[in-house]
Amino acid sequence: MTLAHAEARTGSHGADAVVRAAHAAFLAARTRTREERAAWMEAVADALESHREELVPLAMEETHLPEARLNGELTRSAFQLRLLAGEARRGEFLGAVVDHADPDWGMGPRPDLRRMNVPLGVVGVFGASNFPFAFSVIGGDSASALAAGCAVVHKLHGAHARLAARTAEIVVRALAEAGAPEGLFGAVSGREAAEALVDHPLVKAVGFTGSEAGGRALFDRAVARPEPIPFYGELGSLNPVVVTEAACAARAEEILTGWIGSMTMGVGQFCTKPGLLLLPEAGAEAAARVLPGAASAAALGTGMLTESIRDGFVANRDAVAASADVSVLVAGDAANPPAPGVLTVRAADLDEDAAAVRTEMFGPAAVLITYADTAELDRVLGLLGGQLTGTIHSEDGEDVSGVLQLLQDRCGRVLRGGWPTGVTVSYAQQHGGPYPAATQHATSVGTAAIDRWLRPVAFQDMEDGMLPPELQEANPLGIARRVDGEWQAAR
Amino acid sequence: MTLAHAEARTGSHGADAVVRAAHAAFLAARTRTREERAAWMEAVADALESHREELVPLAMEETHLPEARLNGELTRSAFQLRLLAGEARRGEFLGAVVDHADPDWGMGPRPDLRRMNVPLGVVGVFGASNFPFAFSVIGGDSASALAAGCAVVHKLHGAHARLAARTAEIVVRALAEAGAPEGLFGAVSGREAAEALVDHPLVKAVGFTGSEAGGRALFDRAVARPEPIPFYGELGSLNPVVVTEAACAARAEEILTGWIGSMTMGVGQFCTKPGLLLLPEAGAEAAARVLPGAASAAALGTGMLTESIRDGFVANRDAVAASADVSVLVAGDAANPPAPGVLTVRAADLDEDAAAVRTEMFGPAAVLITYADTAELDRVLGLLGGQLTGTIHSEDGEDVSGVLQLLQDRCGRVLRGGWPTGVTVSYAQQHGGPYPAATQHATSVGTAAIDRWLRPVAFQDMEDGMLPPELQEANPLGIARRVDGEWQAAR
Repeated sequence: MTLAHAEARTGSHGADAVVRAAHAAFLAARTRTREERAAWMEAVADALESHREELVPLAMEETHLPEARLNGELTRSAFQLRLLAGEARRGEFLGAVVDHADPDWGMGPRPDLRRMNVPLGVVGVFGASNFPFAFSVIGGDSASALAAGCAVVHKLHGAHARLAARTAEIVVRALAEAGAPEGLFGAVSGREAAEALVDHPLVKAVGFTGSEAGGRALFDRAVARPEPIPFYGELGSLNPVVVTEAACAARAEEILTGWIGSMTMGVGQFCTKPGLLLLPEAGAEAAARVLPGAASAAALGTGMLTESIRDGFVANRDAVAASADVSVLVAGDAANPPAPGVLTVRAADLDEDAAAVRTEMFGPAAVLITYADTAELDRVLGLLGGQLTGTIHSEDGEDVSGVLQLLQDRCGRVLRGGWPTGVTVSYAQQHGGPYPAATQHATSVGTAAIDRWLRPVAFQDMEDGMLPPELQEANPLGIARRVDGEWQAAR
Repeated sequence: MTLAHAEARTGSHGADAVVRAAHAAFLAARTRTREERAAWMEAVADALESHREELVPLAMEETHLPEARLNGELTRSAFQLRLLAGEARRGEFLGAVVDHADPDWGMGPRPDLRRMNVPLGVVGVFGASNFPFAFSVIGGDSASALAAGCAVVHKLHGAHARLAARTAEIVVRALAEAGAPEGLFGAVSGREAAEALVDHPLVKAVGFTGSEAGGRALFDRAVARPEPIPFYGELGSLNPVVVTEAACAARAEEILTGWIGSMTMGVGQFCTKPGLLLLPEAGAEAAARVLPGAASAAALGTGMLTESIRDGFVANRDAVAASADVSVLVAGDAANPPAPGVLTVRAADLDEDAAAVRTEMFGPAAVLITYADTAELDRVLGLLGGQLTGTIHSEDGEDVSGVLQLLQDRCGRVLRGGWPTGVTVSYAQQHGGPYPAATQHATSVGTAAIDRWLRPVAFQDMEDGMLPPELQEANPLGIARRVDGEWQAAR
């Protein structure tokens, strides 16, 4: 393995070569054990951490994000690889089910039938601009695809091109040194290669995090193929936060200050940025008093990810500001980083097409919506499209079941208190939501992310030795299985 | 509830009314327990069986299928409703996961996070022509959607319009008498209503079984919506059957006779009909000797499902017969039912575009492919698209791992011996496969079919009383859950 193999290829011919190599590696890798796969992933995690001193400064230079944040993100990415490697070892995502032959099955004799999930093959992964480690080269999509047993072809993000290329080199070398088949991870760059990746017959699924416009275009491409493939896209979210009257009365200032802190974190460049705050009208005075100071106190670092992201943000913010019935409560600017802005509108003035409830402003600006009563609140929540998160700030013991249901109906994750900008990597995490938050009902963060890269296969009336070990009668690997309807725990 | 509500509505206005009623019923139904939902489904199963004497003769009249088969299919459909009702009670498809807050989580403090699956809402279900009970009004798609907690709007199939309308009436009445919200199940008919169903903003997923052309058109429609929705389509399959040299030497006649029996079952109108038999050249003589007699002995009943299905079958069969290098081994005809036909072609003469490996002949005809060696066999299997099933006839102890892998790569269910035309309803069943067998990686038969109609939601840092009972700390309903990474069995 030479480092030449780690170079990102461009163009459709380049993409074809990388995909073919990945497919060959997938075929080789599936003859190896889950234990070996887990070890490969752990080797990548180790390599990421051992190159921390090189990668973090490179990321700072390209993304303008601060050192502490990037260090934490690298730690998170290595942790994620190890957690998912653990899942590869456990094999619960195989969903192994064994039905023994049953001559007395209620609808007629049942054959011996055994099902488990198998990896899809080569997966295309598009890096996101805003998390140069956690949602990029070896972030959640790549890690979960490798855990599933797939090969990965990663489309480098141009916003951190040097970091991405260097990370890809490190991943390729770590996999090679750990004994993984050559080509199991590859990289491409440029638009032509990106489109070729989505179109390639050997690519069986795509993971994407980015804008609604770009993501929808690729989704449309993936489903228009002769063989449509699953396109797991995370496309955009406003992340509404509801403040109840009781919470507003009890601690309006604390909530308003916390909101500005969360919505300006990472210069507002989080997919989970709380872009809408729904506040009782009684809180309007506190908002006018607190928000300007909180906004000017926000720590914004040295700039947005790129100049074009800044330009896009300013254009979207100004479009919302200029839309009907919206007022500017805290004026932002067009510097880099832009000063945080807060726009405001009355709930009663919003309709379904209102820019304020339809436009993601990817940067440090958000909309304060004031509502007169719960009917207005419920109506505004009803106007919203799919969201990654929804949050409610309420007081202990308050009955907020109505709002909770409305949030649950349009969000992937519902929070009580706190802010949505932290997304832990764990077993119960759900990062996704109804469209446009995500294009499929799945999560891109946490252990359940692995399920996206699998498909089920059933085996009927096989000799025991013809079955994968996970389905053999003696369960030699001791994984959890459902047998004749009852779950048996892992040994 | 009057029977007027059970009438299938037509046109886009009719569809809109049925969908709105279903959505209202969905909202009401989700305030009820899984136990109640299970009881509603069991009431429908009871009603199906208590109307057996009326429904089976009506089905015979409209479909020309024999009484014994239709009786078995009705039994299967009632069994399916009860099995899925049992799953609704168990709640394992909720996939409940609880992560307690953990200040020492490897990537930084973890909040309390709890995830479970929730029903999507209104589901559109398209009935298939060939299983007037099991894949129609209250077949697998409808039963699994109800088990998930969804409401169902069923598009009646015109090939058994009176049976479908009467079955829908029975379902609506049974649900009403069991106390389900009015509108939980509704019906529409006609093409305009069908398209309106797929387009309707309140419809959140579609289940379909039918032809590749019709299914792909509806799939394209579902994914082109402003909010794309999952379209679970089962579109077509050739169901290859491989006979090894050893099996051919040992029992060619038995296999060839069995093949004709399976491929003419139900006048060849099974999605799992074994449409391709891959036989060693050594078996060609036996085939020429056995197949004509076996074909003329096949029991075909009184006709195909409809005249237009017969016409489509004859046209497809004749097109394959006229394609390059294909010979007619047993001539069919254009009667109704048509006499069974067997076409034959040498493996070496096939390429990827060959009609013989691309055309589903929905009726009593199939293709015998003779292969000279395993290289030819492997090459032909490599030409095939996605399949519902693949079967291998081999001798005990033979190493067939290569063929098994090729079948697994393109099939949802792989059988050793036997024939694919029986599809049991059980925990391990997998009825689906890579495109065009299915448009998504899911099953439409068996308990796992429920998973199609759900999406996950995570709850963060909730007060215990704000959570659904399945996620509350004490697990009052005693369902199986994964807690801090470890599965806890149902109580």
